[in-house]
Amino acid sequence: MPLVSRHLLGLEGVPKEDIQTILDAAISFKEILERPIPKVPTLRHVTVVNLFFESSTRTRISFELAQKRLSADVVNFSASTSSVNKGESLIDTVKNIEAMKIDVIVMRHPQPGAPILLTRHCNSKVINAGDGTHEHPTQGLLDMMTLREIFGGFENLRVTLVGDISHSRVALSNIHGLLTMGAQVAVCGPPTLIPRHLDRLGVKIYHDLDEAIANSEVLNILRIQLERQETGLFPTIREYHSVFGITRERLAKASKELVIMHPGPMNRGVEIDADVADGKQSVILQQVTNGVAVRMAVLFLLAGGTDELVEQTGP
Amino acid sequence: MPLVSRHLLGLEGVPKEDIQTILDAAISFKEILERPIPKVPTLRHVTVVNLFFESSTRTRISFELAQKRLSADVVNFSASTSSVNKGESLIDTVKNIEAMKIDVIVMRHPQPGAPILLTRHCNSKVINAGDGTHEHPTQGLLDMMTLREIFGGFENLRVTLVGDISHSRVALSNIHGLLTMGAQVAVCGPPTLIPRHLDRLGVKIYHDLDEAIANSEVLNILRIQLERQETGLFPTIREYHSVFGITRERLAKASKELVIMHPGPMNRGVEIDADVADGKQSVILQQVTNGVAVRMAVLFLLAGGTDELVEQTGP
Amino acid sequence: MPLVSRHLLGLEGVPKEDIQTILDAAISFKEILERPIPKVPTLRHVTVVNLFFESSTRTRISFELAQKRLSADVVNFSASTSSVNKGESLIDTVKNIEAMKIDVIVMRHPQPGAPILLTRHCNSKVINAGDGTHEHPTQGLLDMMTLREIFGGFENLRVTLVGDISHSRVALSNIHGLLTMGAQVAVCGPPTLIPRHLDRLGVKIYHDLDEAIANSEVLNILRIQLERQETGLFPTIREYHSVFGITRERLAKASKELVIMHPGPMNRGVEIDADVADGKQSVILQQVTNGVAVRMAVLFLLAGGTDELVEQTGP
Repeated sequence: MPLVSRHLLGLEGVPKEDIQTILDAAISFKEILERPIPKVPTLRHVTVVNLFFESSTRTRISFELAQKRLSADVVNFSASTSSVNKGESLIDTVKNIEAMKIDVIVMRHPQPGAPILLTRHCNSKVINAGDGTHEHPTQGLLDMMTLREIFGGFENLRVTLVGDISHSRVALSNIHGLLTMGAQVAVCGPPTLIPRHLDRLGVKIYHDLDEAIANSEVLNILRIQLERQETGLFPTIREYHSVFGITRERLAKASKELVIMHPGPMNRGVEIDADVADGKQSVILQQVTNGVAVRMAVLFLLAGGTDELVEQTGP
Repeated sequence: MPLVSRHLLGLEGVPKEDIQTILDAAISFKEILERPIPKVPTLRHVTVVNLFFESSTRTRISFELAQKRLSADVVNFSASTSSVNKGESLIDTVKNIEAMKIDVIVMRHPQPGAPILLTRHCNSKVINAGDGTHEHPTQGLLDMMTLREIFGGFENLRVTLVGDISHSRVALSNIHGLLTMGAQVAVCGPPTLIPRHLDRLGVKIYHDLDEAIANSEVLNILRIQLERQETGLFPTIREYHSVFGITRERLAKASKELVIMHPGPMNRGVEIDADVADGKQSVILQQVTNGVAVRMAVLFLLAGGTDELVEQTGP
Repeated sequence: MPLVSRHLLGLEGVPKEDIQTILDAAISFKEILERPIPKVPTLRHVTVVNLFFESSTRTRISFELAQKRLSADVVNFSASTSSVNKGESLIDTVKNIEAMKIDVIVMRHPQPGAPILLTRHCNSKVINAGDGTHEHPTQGLLDMMTLREIFGGFENLRVTLVGDISHSRVALSNIHGLLTMGAQVAVCGPPTLIPRHLDRLGVKIYHDLDEAIANSEVLNILRIQLERQETGLFPTIREYHSVFGITRERLAKASKELVIMHPGPMNRGVEIDADVADGKQSVILQQVTNGVAVRMAVLFLLAGGTDELVEQTGP
């Protein structure tokens, strides 16, 4: 079933059917990744440009691997080596690249809404790989894929995002996606780092971590951006860890074992202790593995794939 | 018909037959780019190294797409991450890379003549992707391909390059190529930005834009390098725009519609107004599209292609 | 014959049989590189990540060409554009990349021992592409391959490494590999730049270049890192050249022609004169060519290749 969405700009407003279709495809692709030759010719007619205006390790590599496993042609572009330095507008840069007959643009940009702007001026399919503090939809989807693998579904699943919610594109994508799928979403953090309007979306807000733990099946621990300490919104690292850091002791107080997620990169000893990150409740590396499968699914479905094509790429 | 030229260092001195052969091949390749699978196995035995000693977006991506569509193996190298920092000479760097059995070097370098220097020391085919203020031959060829698509040929076609001619490798490549093909070439700009020797080549010089417009069928608007203002050769931005900026009002005074070109990146509102850049006279994005086809043609012809091979790569 | 070694971290401790197997395979691969289509599908099921935490031209390009000629999928990562900036630990970065199902990690890192650390935490095969002043095993192997091509073997071959031995990973890899294969290894340089423990390994130490030349069949000239002058361990450039610089006059005093090697990048006129570097005794470009073949061999053997596979990739 093709997607209703023409682009993947965020999970806000993406219909349940599209999320279902993407996760179904991602699970098929994960199976392909386990094969001796983890590669299909599905997108060999497709050219993808990765436009990264912000540095990235795991997201860029994950997208690039997804593209190569689908046999797409890939061109990488990073802002530091670009004519963006020469003052050309983003739209001109992208319209030019598009005129070279490319099909899909994967873009990371520090400006919230930059990928949306693109879709108004370009014909390519656009995938948002993170736009400032707005959304990071493939991260939301890979988190959801991981939860579906563990719990089978989302109905009434209690997921709590912990940390700096205000500045997190990962939080927003998870919130929108999980709410659409019927999960019960909560956030937990200091009041200065939680936007007030969230309760209007139906998100429960905790300021007490123990209370959040007692009412959750899953904790998704967000990265604390240490550089924000200077803003005054933030306690000291030590204080943050003592109030919101996820430790084994704290988790032991829960009546049942919680699933622990983290989108990375982690600050071990700050928002999460090393023994939690590496412990048996952690699904952090499973998230990373699923990232490649989810990105294959999104690329495949947006670049004109159909259910039939999935079959064609079989062994 | 194989090229007479062994390398593509500039359009100065390239015989008419070679330009014809390149443009013919480019038009064939453009047709391949329109196919559902825009890729041919023609250069799968060829390895190309892109050596960029200066930052570039569109030229690098355009070359890389051309290489991938011909199925060449591609290795990218940019100066910022190189042992050039360690003080090795350009020639040693390139001889080393060449000893790894590569076939074609595409080089951008801030030093005029750097690609010519290479050919004295290396056996690879060298394509100049811009050498300082000297030449940018594939840009000249893609401009010419665009003109041929529009006008069918070059004989007596009146083309005027507008702006900073002195510092423009794009201007020089266009001038040499167009003169060889029989066009009537003019330049227009402030006297401080036009080299005097141009009239000896048979290039007409205008300092009045209205006069240039009245005597042209095509304007190729060059990018103004804003950083040159400090040199004293340059009026203020506002003054430049009022005297040499291409506006709709100015173009309306012409007796017939001119074709508007720009090699990019554009300074909208400086050398060209936004409504001209995006208007119906503009062929700016067609130039970009043709860039990939022209670069495929040059790579193909220099890396040992023959007319027969073009046939073999048919559908 | 498969390798005993699971990784290639250094040549210290690598058994004679493994070195033999790698050099045998490299010689087969060099023959493949001479074919019209210098490419085999051998590793098309393998994904390699090149993790370069230090800038590099020739080593990175050489590895990348080796990978492409084996049809492996390649993802490049360099520290400057990475979340390493965000303070994530090396181990977390690599475990994350590994969770994306990659097979081989090629790593360059300024910290001696960094690749060894990786192997304790990761399941991928690790190839050290240079770790600080410790080892650079593929450079050692390509030097040895070159010597085997010239002399047929290593038994009692007298090889002298000249220059800054203390800070050279190239020196250490050559010393270990050549000693294992039965060569007579010596070093020559100022006392401040030669570690004293080398004589315990069975390495002869010269401080007089003429004496070293008189007792060698091969000189491997190391790059002088000009930036070390400030450390006080170092004479002036002029003084270094007059005492340890390899000149034609000096070599002419030898009773028979020595083979001249240099791992590059060279400082012409400092540790080696231009006419020696480019002269007929020099095998410097042969070393570079062999680098691709040796890296193909190492990738092939570590990523699960067998002797049979070499046959399958025949013409």
